[in-house]
Amino acid sequence: MLPFWANWCNRTMLGEIIAIGNELTSGRITNTTSGFAAHHLFEAGFDIYAMHTIGDTPTLIGEALKRALKRVDFVLVTGGLGPTDDDLTTEAVSEALNRPTMPNLELLSLIRKHLEENSDQPVGSLDKLAWLPEGAETLNPGSKMAGFQLIHRDKPIFFLPGIPHQMRTLLVEQVLPRLATWYQGRQQTNYQRIYKIFGKTEQEINLQIEQIDLGEDVTIGYYPVFPDVHLSVIIRGDDQKTTLTLAEKAFLLIENHLGAFIYGRDQETMASVLGKLLTKQQKTFSVAESCTGGLISHLMTSVAGSSSYYLGGVTSYANSMKETYLGVEPTLLEQVGAVSPEVAKTMAQGMRSKSKADISISITGIAGPGGGTTEKPVGTVFIGLAYDGTTDVQHFLFSGNRYEIQHETAQTALNLVRNYLLTK
Amino acid sequence: MLPFWANWCNRTMLGEIIAIGNELTSGRITNTTSGFAAHHLFEAGFDIYAMHTIGDTPTLIGEALKRALKRVDFVLVTGGLGPTDDDLTTEAVSEALNRPTMPNLELLSLIRKHLEENSDQPVGSLDKLAWLPEGAETLNPGSKMAGFQLIHRDKPIFFLPGIPHQMRTLLVEQVLPRLATWYQGRQQTNYQRIYKIFGKTEQEINLQIEQIDLGEDVTIGYYPVFPDVHLSVIIRGDDQKTTLTLAEKAFLLIENHLGAFIYGRDQETMASVLGKLLTKQQKTFSVAESCTGGLISHLMTSVAGSSSYYLGGVTSYANSMKETYLGVEPTLLEQVGAVSPEVAKTMAQGMRSKSKADISISITGIAGPGGGTTEKPVGTVFIGLAYDGTTDVQHFLFSGNRYEIQHETAQTALNLVRNYLLTK
Repeated sequence: MLPFWANWCNRTMLGEIIAIGNELTSGRITNTTSGFAAHHLFEAGFDIYAMHTIGDTPTLIGEALKRALKRVDFVLVTGGLGPTDDDLTTEAVSEALNRPTMPNLELLSLIRKHLEENSDQPVGSLDKLAWLPEGAETLNPGSKMAGFQLIHRDKPIFFLPGIPHQMRTLLVEQVLPRLATWYQGRQQTNYQRIYKIFGKTEQEINLQIEQIDLGEDVTIGYYPVFPDVHLSVIIRGDDQKTTLTLAEKAFLLIENHLGAFIYGRDQETMASVLGKLLTKQQKTFSVAESCTGGLISHLMTSVAGSSSYYLGGVTSYANSMKETYLGVEPTLLEQVGAVSPEVAKTMAQGMRSKSKADISISITGIAGPGGGTTEKPVGTVFIGLAYDGTTDVQHFLFSGNRYEIQHETAQTALNLVRNYLLTK
Repeated sequence: MLPFWANWCNRTMLGEIIAIGNELTSGRITNTTSGFAAHHLFEAGFDIYAMHTIGDTPTLIGEALKRALKRVDFVLVTGGLGPTDDDLTTEAVSEALNRPTMPNLELLSLIRKHLEENSDQPVGSLDKLAWLPEGAETLNPGSKMAGFQLIHRDKPIFFLPGIPHQMRTLLVEQVLPRLATWYQGRQQTNYQRIYKIFGKTEQEINLQIEQIDLGEDVTIGYYPVFPDVHLSVIIRGDDQKTTLTLAEKAFLLIENHLGAFIYGRDQETMASVLGKLLTKQQKTFSVAESCTGGLISHLMTSVAGSSSYYLGGVTSYANSMKETYLGVEPTLLEQVGAVSPEVAKTMAQGMRSKSKADISISITGIAGPGGGTTEKPVGTVFIGLAYDGTTDVQHFLFSGNRYEIQHETAQTALNLVRNYLLTK
């Protein structure tokens, strides 16, 4: 059986990604850069044949690079370019490809200049950064970020730093344009859309999608991304116009079929979608949290521009905070306990009236691991929603660890507000 | 040149990790499971030779598995075991290793029983889960989690689901004990410690460490993990007692040398370390946030048991919230603006007096991308610290995007409280 892209392989350019660092193979750091690169390369019409993570070991680096050069059209190498002793990539590449390192004069003068301004730094360790394999071209002349390109036997190899934000900047600003120029017209047309779904399992969505006839050019993938499920829809073809028509048809079918269970797509988050709805309906919003401990507020304010609809919130972790800031009576807390529909209701009402928001929600529950009882086990959560003259309270029982219960609660609460705004 | 472990290769057992899924090679999902596995395997005394990420492509899966079996002692494969059409791992393994799939009767009866209880689910798609390659042994009999083990030519191969929490559970509860038994006495002794450092760059730490003589058995790694730098210290040896003595000596030297710049180690976070200090000194804490938007509160309450010292906080995103909940005068806001030392001071004092916490902090600043001016550019942040009769305010200018400014601010604020508690 051939790989799924075998029938395209004269057309789609293939790449491999090699991430280097003992911090990755010892599992101390999660490799996020390879996935980021794969995502952007894929969207630019390239396929990733494989991604590898290996330690700071010259022979392994050389082997991986040489194997990749035999079977793919370009290689992206990240990590091991820094000034410290465990950064061995440049050396390994020089050895593997028979290209002796030589000083890059421009880099050298940049480093010398930097050192004059910061006289407490040692010269030697930074000088290392200026020695690159023969034929290397720096990716970002004049910048302090390491990173270079080699064209080896007509195939581009890109070397980027492992530091995520530097790697991302160089990938987007330097690698993608250079690759696109190099392989101009040899990429396929790809349309990919991710639908973000909350409130249905992977299998429930699979069953629903199987009922639609999407045709052969549409590839569907189901991915549980806690607390959501992501549905990936990919349409590929040679001709841009035909592919686009196919894609639009498929997207429409899927959207009609899954309806409001799709809360967003691609880069959207529940908080950004809710933000758009609030902006459109000119409503303000505030949040009284307890067991989510600020998470909902944090999610809302992760969205740039959220200050135009999000007023803020109170995290009333201690009961005294519920009394002082939200107007919950001590006697009520004594009678029914902090985790109760009555307290959820008062919290939402108190938050709304004092903050003068149009809509307020309240959360009270037990995120665990401690604090559960037989009557109110860990995962018990009450969510209150106050708007106009009404306050609704819903009871939930979530499962999982503390992290999972907090995130499931936050997503559920934001989704309640979203559904309220969609139906009013 | 030989790989760095070549001189141990008769002793240290080597493994490879293969993660499968188009969602990974297309970059839609970040692979977190391989790193988790590497970390735990490393701590258990095994070395990871390489980690690979490949698509749901049977030939590639087979190739990667066969290559790994030639050069390492065990293989861990994750992903592609689910019920949907794009889950192809079992099939690929069966083909590559010449082991026809056969139904596992126990699994089959478990699935049938599950289906009787959930009659709306289709039989066929789940039945697939019960067909395993010849010789496979399920890892967790009686559970709904997929996962099996194959011993192929005397080498164990483990197949785990790609869903992170299932994979983690099976790795820790099933794979590690099975591997330890299989290769009993053939692992080396490893001691690893991660020091978490805030307020120094990778290179500054490198320079300081180079001044200490740690000896040849100590391997040091420097890793910027925004906003921290992590320092990894590994000591390896054959004899447990000698290695432990060496490790303890190295740890002590490093700790003395870097002092309070080390805020924690291994699994500790700034919030968990601060929590321990607050508990020890029997102090309560509350937070008035603005540009961090609930992040600090979220970090504090991510720690289990935080309710014993963390009272809660106010996210006063809108100016009206600063007035209502924190007692900031409207005239003050008009005169000096919300992002000012005066407002930071009033916020911290208002938070402390109303919440009755022993210590309160306040944050006001501009996280961007909008809102910056020449006088107060994006990244301008004031942090107030109120305790006893005093309120200190500090001025910062952080750089980066919204995410980075919010996280750098949060870490700086928590570190200020930590330093205050350390010196009092």
